[in-house]
Amino acid sequence: MTVMSDTAETGAGRTIISVDAMGGDRGPATVVAGISRSAKKNPNIGFILHGPKPQLEKLVARKKNLAGRVEIRDAEGVVTMDDKPSQVIRTGKSTSMWSAIESVRNGDADVCVSCGNTGALMMLSVVRLRKLPGVNRPAIAVLWPSRSAQGFNIMLDVGADIRADEHDLMQYALMGASYARNGMGLKRPRIGLLNVGTEEHKGRAELKAAHELITENAEAAKFEFVGFVEGGDIPKDVADVIVTDGFTGNIALKTGEGTASLIGSLLKEAFKFSPLSRLAAILAYTSLRRLNKRIDPRRVNGGVFLGLNGTVVKSHGSSDATGVAAAVKLAFKLSQSGFSEKLAARVASAVQVQQDTSTHGEKNG
Amino acid sequence: MTVMSDTAETGAGRTIISVDAMGGDRGPATVVAGISRSAKKNPNIGFILHGPKPQLEKLVARKKNLAGRVEIRDAEGVVTMDDKPSQVIRTGKSTSMWSAIESVRNGDADVCVSCGNTGALMMLSVVRLRKLPGVNRPAIAVLWPSRSAQGFNIMLDVGADIRADEHDLMQYALMGASYARNGMGLKRPRIGLLNVGTEEHKGRAELKAAHELITENAEAAKFEFVGFVEGGDIPKDVADVIVTDGFTGNIALKTGEGTASLIGSLLKEAFKFSPLSRLAAILAYTSLRRLNKRIDPRRVNGGVFLGLNGTVVKSHGSSDATGVAAAVKLAFKLSQSGFSEKLAARVASAVQVQQDTSTHGEKNG
Repeated sequence: MTVMSDTAETGAGRTIISVDAMGGDRGPATVVAGISRSAKKNPNIGFILHGPKPQLEKLVARKKNLAGRVEIRDAEGVVTMDDKPSQVIRTGKSTSMWSAIESVRNGDADVCVSCGNTGALMMLSVVRLRKLPGVNRPAIAVLWPSRSAQGFNIMLDVGADIRADEHDLMQYALMGASYARNGMGLKRPRIGLLNVGTEEHKGRAELKAAHELITENAEAAKFEFVGFVEGGDIPKDVADVIVTDGFTGNIALKTGEGTASLIGSLLKEAFKFSPLSRLAAILAYTSLRRLNKRIDPRRVNGGVFLGLNGTVVKSHGSSDATGVAAAVKLAFKLSQSGFSEKLAARVASAVQVQQDTSTHGEKNG
Repeated sequence: MTVMSDTAETGAGRTIISVDAMGGDRGPATVVAGISRSAKKNPNIGFILHGPKPQLEKLVARKKNLAGRVEIRDAEGVVTMDDKPSQVIRTGKSTSMWSAIESVRNGDADVCVSCGNTGALMMLSVVRLRKLPGVNRPAIAVLWPSRSAQGFNIMLDVGADIRADEHDLMQYALMGASYARNGMGLKRPRIGLLNVGTEEHKGRAELKAAHELITENAEAAKFEFVGFVEGGDIPKDVADVIVTDGFTGNIALKTGEGTASLIGSLLKEAFKFSPLSRLAAILAYTSLRRLNKRIDPRRVNGGVFLGLNGTVVKSHGSSDATGVAAAVKLAFKLSQSGFSEKLAARVASAVQVQQDTSTHGEKNG
């Protein structure tokens, strides 16, 4: 599962991560700082870095610990946040994003990391890596700090596609369960379907249909379906995987991040209010750091594209070095566990199960 | 605008609030405790309380400060959280919820408060109070703690209806602007339309159409349209009013509340971690209370139904006495400001403007 690169630059025996150096809001210096952190912590990672060679060579040369661990692939073009995905497909062949995905496509790496334009990255990934057999709409899955035993819940889709019908939602349940099983070691993940109420008669038509479909397939697909869950259940210990369409999931994700950020800044202000509260803040420093580490979105940075031949980790556009390092860590973990292959096998067998169930259903009328 | 009741029970000169005593998760004792708090703080409120008379008489008798300020209207039936709205319309005439709305319909009060089943309350309100001329879908608006100067943003719809087309979203913009203008004193409220990105080409078809429609009408309706906003912008100082459909709004609201609640409980745990952090917690007590007061959802409790002949305040099903008191305070404020009449006038004039604009548009081709 791990690609063994035999180039002198990256070193034999290392897990190679393909990294798009461009397209993040903070530029390539931040990306290089991020991979340098990862390299320091983990001697088993090597990198293929994509972007304008002269610029990247200078940045990499400044980080001593990256010596011999980074292969730079020259790509002059940059996909900006404003570029339309369809245009990137047509004219983006020279971009660092394209090049980074190409390294997964041709087997030089099996996971790619990018902080760039999500829509373009998704469309490029779909076009170049292609969807797994049986997958109609790929999805972006994120980790959400939660009350569950593993400390995180998975939510998908958070923005790969703004639409999802009942069959797509069923696929998301399968893919999310596979991610939870392989990435978190949960044998029988609990799946919840996001809705505006937990009663079965509530919500949009496709949600009611998806509720039926997921109920029918839960046993065969080896997950537990807990039914409809609400927005407030996302960070609770109710479901390990929250399934929703990409429009709703994106709004929920950003609303959650925005709320956490507001509370964080209000908390800082509260502690600056009086001399006594400033003293309290000093004493509370480690407690607050502990809390911050638990919910810091940079540390759970990295949405994972599910449903493709190969894994793509999308890091926040505004990622700093900590954020980039978190995304690389996730990419390394997924690459090592052979996640791409396991997910492909799971989806393939589930499609088989669905076909069997459907034939069975027809027989019964 | 304020109804002067001449019954001995409620007292002349008071603003009368109609309160559904039943249907909340914590039962009528909590509702009575809530109105007792309100009565203590504000000598100008009187209540019409709806529910089973013998039970309510006992509860009210225990609160000395409610003497002479509550008129009880007997209603034996209770709308439960599981009741389907359509069934409540058919068979719910004997319920406390029906009775509470009836007091607004017949002019005994002009604002009603209920903690009950949202769907039923909404449908009953629409059927009994009727929609304002020009309003297709009424909406539920909530206050969201924010970075804006007024400390709160308004978001609507958060669950009156799971659908909304571009015309409904335009109506929400008008109604939200009116709420911001009359309820918050903002002369020229900033309106944002919730989407998965701020670029104009992103999102669902009805959102693109709504973007055009709201842009065209902003000048005449005297608000500023800031365009698309994302989930992370809801608590920011970007827009005073966030417009969205009821499905998305409900998910966002509950996700925000769930996130705040998770952080709150993690914060408590962080402070219990070591003797030093416990000491810090004691010193930080007032700071944390200040923060809590700022973001406590109970204190901004009360979604307001907009677009009807009369105002209905929906309090959380799980409201405690503090929550009920907050909802009553909001109801009092709206009743005193003559909000219902002002909103009606605003919507009526906006409909006129839209008709004019549309005629004008046709003339120009």
